[in-house]
Amino acid sequence: MSHQYYNPVKIYFGVGELQNLKAILNGRKAYLVIFPEARNLGLLEKIQKILGDQLIGIEENVFPNPDVSNLTEGYQKFWANYSDSDVILAVGGGSVIDTAKSLMVGTKNKCFDDLVDLLSKGSSFKPHEVRPLIAIPTTAGTGSEVTPWATIWDKENSKKYSLHLPETWPEAAIIDPQLMLSLPGGVTLQSGLDALSHALEAIWNRNANPISDTFGVSAARDVIEVLPKLMLDLSDVQLRTDMALAALKAGMAFSNTKTALAHSISYDMTLNYGLPHGIACSFTLPMVLSKAIGHSPDRDLVLSQIFDCSIQKAPEKLLNFLHGLGVKTEFHDYGVSALEANLMINKALEGVRGKNFIGAI
Amino acid sequence: MSHQYYNPVKIYFGVGELQNLKAILNGRKAYLVIFPEARNLGLLEKIQKILGDQLIGIEENVFPNPDVSNLTEGYQKFWANYSDSDVILAVGGGSVIDTAKSLMVGTKNKCFDDLVDLLSKGSSFKPHEVRPLIAIPTTAGTGSEVTPWATIWDKENSKKYSLHLPETWPEAAIIDPQLMLSLPGGVTLQSGLDALSHALEAIWNRNANPISDTFGVSAARDVIEVLPKLMLDLSDVQLRTDMALAALKAGMAFSNTKTALAHSISYDMTLNYGLPHGIACSFTLPMVLSKAIGHSPDRDLVLSQIFDCSIQKAPEKLLNFLHGLGVKTEFHDYGVSALEANLMINKALEGVRGKNFIGAI
Repeated sequence: MSHQYYNPVKIYFGVGELQNLKAILNGRKAYLVIFPEARNLGLLEKIQKILGDQLIGIEENVFPNPDVSNLTEGYQKFWANYSDSDVILAVGGGSVIDTAKSLMVGTKNKCFDDLVDLLSKGSSFKPHEVRPLIAIPTTAGTGSEVTPWATIWDKENSKKYSLHLPETWPEAAIIDPQLMLSLPGGVTLQSGLDALSHALEAIWNRNANPISDTFGVSAARDVIEVLPKLMLDLSDVQLRTDMALAALKAGMAFSNTKTALAHSISYDMTLNYGLPHGIACSFTLPMVLSKAIGHSPDRDLVLSQIFDCSIQKAPEKLLNFLHGLGVKTEFHDYGVSALEANLMINKALEGVRGKNFIGAI
Repeated sequence: MSHQYYNPVKIYFGVGELQNLKAILNGRKAYLVIFPEARNLGLLEKIQKILGDQLIGIEENVFPNPDVSNLTEGYQKFWANYSDSDVILAVGGGSVIDTAKSLMVGTKNKCFDDLVDLLSKGSSFKPHEVRPLIAIPTTAGTGSEVTPWATIWDKENSKKYSLHLPETWPEAAIIDPQLMLSLPGGVTLQSGLDALSHALEAIWNRNANPISDTFGVSAARDVIEVLPKLMLDLSDVQLRTDMALAALKAGMAFSNTKTALAHSISYDMTLNYGLPHGIACSFTLPMVLSKAIGHSPDRDLVLSQIFDCSIQKAPEKLLNFLHGLGVKTEFHDYGVSALEANLMINKALEGVRGKNFIGAI
């Protein structure tokens, strides 16, 4: 089996890095996808001032976990009226970046249904037209700024499409921890735990490789150290910077492995029990860690580099970490019976992501 | 100041990975640059068997630290007779990979003098033609398989050119620790210490960024742990694998920072005192570390993650590490007087690489 690592995203990282946006665009015209609250926060105006007349269009109408029904209008608006943009900018969390990714690929008829048709076939295709993406995350967790894929939901047909082409790697990610200072505690916690889940899932993963492991271990150690401190002082720039770096490294890790069992379980918990993604993909981490241990000496060794204790005691340590953050870790805490939980885990093990788990059969 | 990280090389890593070469070429025709001893080791025949008639030309005439005078003939042979190659393969250490990189860029008249003319101007240029490179290192140290530059010496004119274009990133690096099993002790030690120097020089570097730091810390820790064990058991595949990974991570680190003071000093030690590169760029590491400490809390923090002791005690620990490997660490050990050493260090601090050092003025 071949172990491959590849990540061609140009990463700009540091407090105030947003100010380099104009230089990074280097004269190119941009279309901006941004979260609705950015206007009241003054962030939209800040970006307008930086870009001046290089900013030729704005989309503020972004939905959480974007669905086909949410994306159609925006897609057609972009490709009909703003296709002279040289670059798409995404400023926001995972949903904003995924929405912007769905604009990258233009079909012959500039029609979103055609894109969904192509995605529903599940195989790769050569896009008719592509616009490059520069992603500027405002949360520390999604990792979408350094991955080539986007999830597009189709709730009406109970489906989930994945846009994932060689052309959908972002050109660049600009990570400016200053943009995360206004994030409320709840979202800070959820996105931080999403990052921890990305880091661990990249390790107990059949697609793991030594470079993704390096990022995964470093990211997980950082989240465990930094997140509790950050929750006590949300306005500390250094802690925001440390957490942004941890989330970036977690993104670099799972950009080459995709996620595994904890994320596979999370989909049902979000769809059927309304749990926010960051909690849904992390409350099971101690249980999944227990299942991961003992499958291979190599994976045990990498996992043991995270927890400064014997690998057997690591699940309890992770449990205490989550409890310390006020996160409940049992299915029954969320109204799921033991029977339902077992069915959910077994179904998740057979899902596309669940099959990446080293403990899947 | 903007902190950027970018590395677009596809990395294949693992024991036996060479066997995937045919799949990676995906039908493309290849020209092979390989070290002269590979024929007797059976490695040339192994590659010929893997590639069959996809291998359309071979260059075995490779010199250490390749000079303009060594490269001219091979360059003109390649571009006159083998320019229908789709890919250049480099199999060997740093000199082989640098030789292969010098073939990547074709000038209008297929003439090496024209390339040297372009390089001597020192500015970037748009190449007339380019062939992609796949680098397969047989030593664990050079890092050249994941960097976009090659050094071309011009001893007659006492000059050193750097080939470094956006087009000279290798397409892929195939790191197969099995290829390193036949490396003798001396070269194993020298290349291992070169890797340690890359890792440390990427950290005490003005171009350091959080991703290069992640690779630098991880690589340095690994070299310090693995290299002494490997020197006692050169045929251990797991130790060869660990050392190959350490060298790869060191390469990923300095691919974005370049080197600093220790390498700047090494050039004089190699040219004037005949010291092998791996020793020349590492015997000063404890001294350079002492100079690096105290310049910024941020750099001290990153450096302290390598040595499991207080940062003040780190230079002594590094000194003991080198002595334990039989490496002498003082200038006078190599016949350089204190006066000469001081002059050399001051000159090195003013060199292009020396200026990258955080302690340079």
